[in-house]
Amino acid sequence: MADFNFMLRIYWEDTDAGGIVFYANYLKFFERARTEWLRTLGINQLALREQKNIQLVVTHTQTNYRLPARLDDLLRITACIKQTTRASVLFEQQAFRQSAQHEELLCEGVVKVACVNASTMKPERFPPQLLSALTCI
Amino acid sequence: MADFNFMLRIYWEDTDAGGIVFYANYLKFFERARTEWLRTLGINQLALREQKNIQLVVTHTQTNYRLPARLDDLLRITACIKQTTRASVLFEQQAFRQSAQHEELLCEGVVKVACVNASTMKPERFPPQLLSALTCI
Amino acid sequence: MADFNFMLRIYWEDTDAGGIVFYANYLKFFERARTEWLRTLGINQLALREQKNIQLVVTHTQTNYRLPARLDDLLRITACIKQTTRASVLFEQQAFRQSAQHEELLCEGVVKVACVNASTMKPERFPPQLLSALTCI
Amino acid sequence: MADFNFMLRIYWEDTDAGGIVFYANYLKFFERARTEWLRTLGINQLALREQKNIQLVVTHTQTNYRLPARLDDLLRITACIKQTTRASVLFEQQAFRQSAQHEELLCEGVVKVACVNASTMKPERFPPQLLSALTCI
Repeated sequence: MADFNFMLRIYWEDTDAGGIVFYANYLKFFERARTEWLRTLGINQLALREQKNIQLVVTHTQTNYRLPARLDDLLRITACIKQTTRASVLFEQQAFRQSAQHEELLCEGVVKVACVNASTMKPERFPPQLLSALTCI
Repeated sequence: MADFNFMLRIYWEDTDAGGIVFYANYLKFFERARTEWLRTLGINQLALREQKNIQLVVTHTQTNYRLPARLDDLLRITACIKQTTRASVLFEQQAFRQSAQHEELLCEGVVKVACVNASTMKPERFPPQLLSALTCI
Repeated sequence: MADFNFMLRIYWEDTDAGGIVFYANYLKFFERARTEWLRTLGINQLALREQKNIQLVVTHTQTNYRLPARLDDLLRITACIKQTTRASVLFEQQAFRQSAQHEELLCEGVVKVACVNASTMKPERFPPQLLSALTCI
Repeated sequence: MADFNFMLRIYWEDTDAGGIVFYANYLKFFERARTEWLRTLGINQLALREQKNIQLVVTHTQTNYRLPARLDDLLRITACIKQTTRASVLFEQQAFRQSAQHEELLCEGVVKVACVNASTMKPERFPPQLLSALTCI
């Protein structure tokens, strides 16, 4: 299965007083990459909610931090689907620091996203169109 | 008019790589104080939206930064109503660092909050009960 | 081993357009509880860095989300040490929603914190005083 | 004086339970635009701190909110220098929502940035190279 790649820059807002990126923010970076991936697949999360009353929610995350990112770093965030069920998708994701010479793995993790009814927050099957978009990647 | 006071602690999440609190976060601190003040007045923002379809939105802010806050600092946030109209309230707010000996002014600002229809986001008059709660302070 | 408990309130800043608390923020809530726990043990993270040039960094996290928190919810965050080595501590943490009648588990996770040299970011042993404070809990 | 333009996308992390972008986040968006502008001028904030021990800090902000941004919106952030002194720069900034047909002004504000000594946080003159980069725009 192909990877999706998303580039982002580290700003002041992302860092903490340790001089490095605040670890919880990698979950935001991973989310940006997933959202952009869904966008390229024609999946609009706001429309999913307004038209089908379903919402994608994160039910599990796991992260390992290897090296810290710093202000102004350019990061490449990857996303790759590891497993799909009728109501959830497991993404494998990584954050790399880009530099002229090479790149370094900073953080890697998995994120499980489930489909829920937007009103009740109960699990629901993916709409067929969404599931086929995700499984045909 | 009386001040409302709210104490909070600075955590890693609030700081940036400059070793100080990221300036945008004072708007969050000011909001926490306003929310707690409304709570003591019996005003529940979620209920306002679900029962009356109105929402309080910030339409204007102004902040002056005097001294930086750092990790582990204990802050006293004040809120005071400066002006009230039928559809908006102007709050004057300050952030002080507390220490054993004295306190220091770190940041001061004003925040204007308007009442809007939660569906259309158009300005709406405050419900009488809300307005009287705010003006009787 | 005893649990540490820390209460916090959900504000607008914590929520997202799904109407619930943004999942990455639970890592912030867990951190606040750990920081307050260290504070009660007499451990000041800023002093650790300035006096001993060491820093505590998160190297691994894992979270499971059961139920969503919403605006104005009151949360009880727990922290408990599961394992300690010479250079890392594994915390087990939970977030519960408090209400008059009962409480509900919203999120649970583990967070591994390592001791590093603040300049090089290389692993370092915990100072004896810190280790004994952590293991005597 | 020429405007600088910076495009960004709204993600879940930027929104709140009101279904719109949390107002404090526009200060982050404005900062990203200023940072990218400085980068195009060859000004690296981390290098300023490490090589010259100076830091750029925000001392004043003012924002007016006109229309809310929502999830998935594409924003154009502008920055323009309104005034420069030997130790501070006043930026005028705006956020527009882009769509196929037109664009709408969502938020406008001013941000004053001062040059301080990174150790003492006391005001300091801009390094000549930085000042001339800023005034030659």
